[in-house]
Amino acid sequence: MQLLGYWRSGASYRVRIVLALKGIDYAYRPVNLLKGEQRSADYLRKNPQALVPTLITDDGEPLTQSLAIAEYLEEIYPEPPILPRSPSLRAKARAIAAAIACEAQPFANLRILKYLTDDLGLDDAAKAGFLNRWPGGALNAVEALAKETAGTYCVGDAPGLADAFLIPQLYAARRFRIDLSCCPTLLAIDERCQKLPAFAKAHPDNQPDAVKE
Amino acid sequence: MQLLGYWRSGASYRVRIVLALKGIDYAYRPVNLLKGEQRSADYLRKNPQALVPTLITDDGEPLTQSLAIAEYLEEIYPEPPILPRSPSLRAKARAIAAAIACEAQPFANLRILKYLTDDLGLDDAAKAGFLNRWPGGALNAVEALAKETAGTYCVGDAPGLADAFLIPQLYAARRFRIDLSCCPTLLAIDERCQKLPAFAKAHPDNQPDAVKE
Repeated sequence: MQLLGYWRSGASYRVRIVLALKGIDYAYRPVNLLKGEQRSADYLRKNPQALVPTLITDDGEPLTQSLAIAEYLEEIYPEPPILPRSPSLRAKARAIAAAIACEAQPFANLRILKYLTDDLGLDDAAKAGFLNRWPGGALNAVEALAKETAGTYCVGDAPGLADAFLIPQLYAARRFRIDLSCCPTLLAIDERCQKLPAFAKAHPDNQPDAVKE
Repeated sequence: MQLLGYWRSGASYRVRIVLALKGIDYAYRPVNLLKGEQRSADYLRKNPQALVPTLITDDGEPLTQSLAIAEYLEEIYPEPPILPRSPSLRAKARAIAAAIACEAQPFANLRILKYLTDDLGLDDAAKAGFLNRWPGGALNAVEALAKETAGTYCVGDAPGLADAFLIPQLYAARRFRIDLSCCPTLLAIDERCQKLPAFAKAHPDNQPDAVKE
């Protein structure tokens, strides 16, 4: 298996966590977003959205979208599971992941921030307002979801899908200086996840394409 | 089962399609977004994100997030399936649904458009630019994904998860006057889906809370 990703991309980070939690071996192939490598003809054939990551399966099939890739990995490598057993708890774990993927991440990435600056002419104060309202507001709601299901991790006492989505989003939130003071449950889960080897292995700073700033 | 939703909400529409495809009986309970009913204390206890829909299971458990609800329904009512059998095709169906949920829908709803007008002061031309760039751009990429997997419907010849996400997004795209001229595959799938009773039953206009404009 190959993972085509970028060290600081939240969606790449999510999939790296899932791969590490399951102990799956893979080759990491960096796609340099700053150099626009995601828009090369070769990459677009694998990922027409020009987004990272892309997982190349053992059969050479390119898979896109971190949520879809995570479910694929759960189906073909069921142990250890990243979802609980009970259907309604599985739904609650998936809801946390989806809330992050659909309500937080779309508003907390470089391409939308570049658009806000270059196309809409927003100043730093307006951008901070945008970040705290949209991805920040979504994380406040995720706090309420996680409060209901959390044990040691987002859902119960085993790390899984929801944590694989939460930790990269908190990393982005810090990078973009989003106020996290209303998210004590999420911050406590983050602290516990950071102690696990799988999360350390998947961390952006520990990737071969990481750049020291 | 009860579905708490709003006639014109894309995420409610998706879940109605899945319920109808599976022939599941449910009670529909409208939540009037224009009156702010999603922010009532009672609703927030079920759905802390103040979003629709919420599915109340037979056990009285409130489930949120359309992607999570669709997977739950697939797990507890497996027939007819909304996902193909092969793991990589399942991933491709989920990728189309996720691309719509994570890249198109977040930028094509009333709350973000209200923010663009009220908070950022965008005029109609700037809003049209925003809509064609973000949800419009995402649909163009979904066109490329669907081109690869489509038969009669998004993935092969049975309607399923990807169609349940696509059709409501095209409905929103028309409502917000997004240019769909680069999406012939998606428009052809739309036409075929609209002929199916399940899609007709789920259509916004056929809900008890629909308002004629």
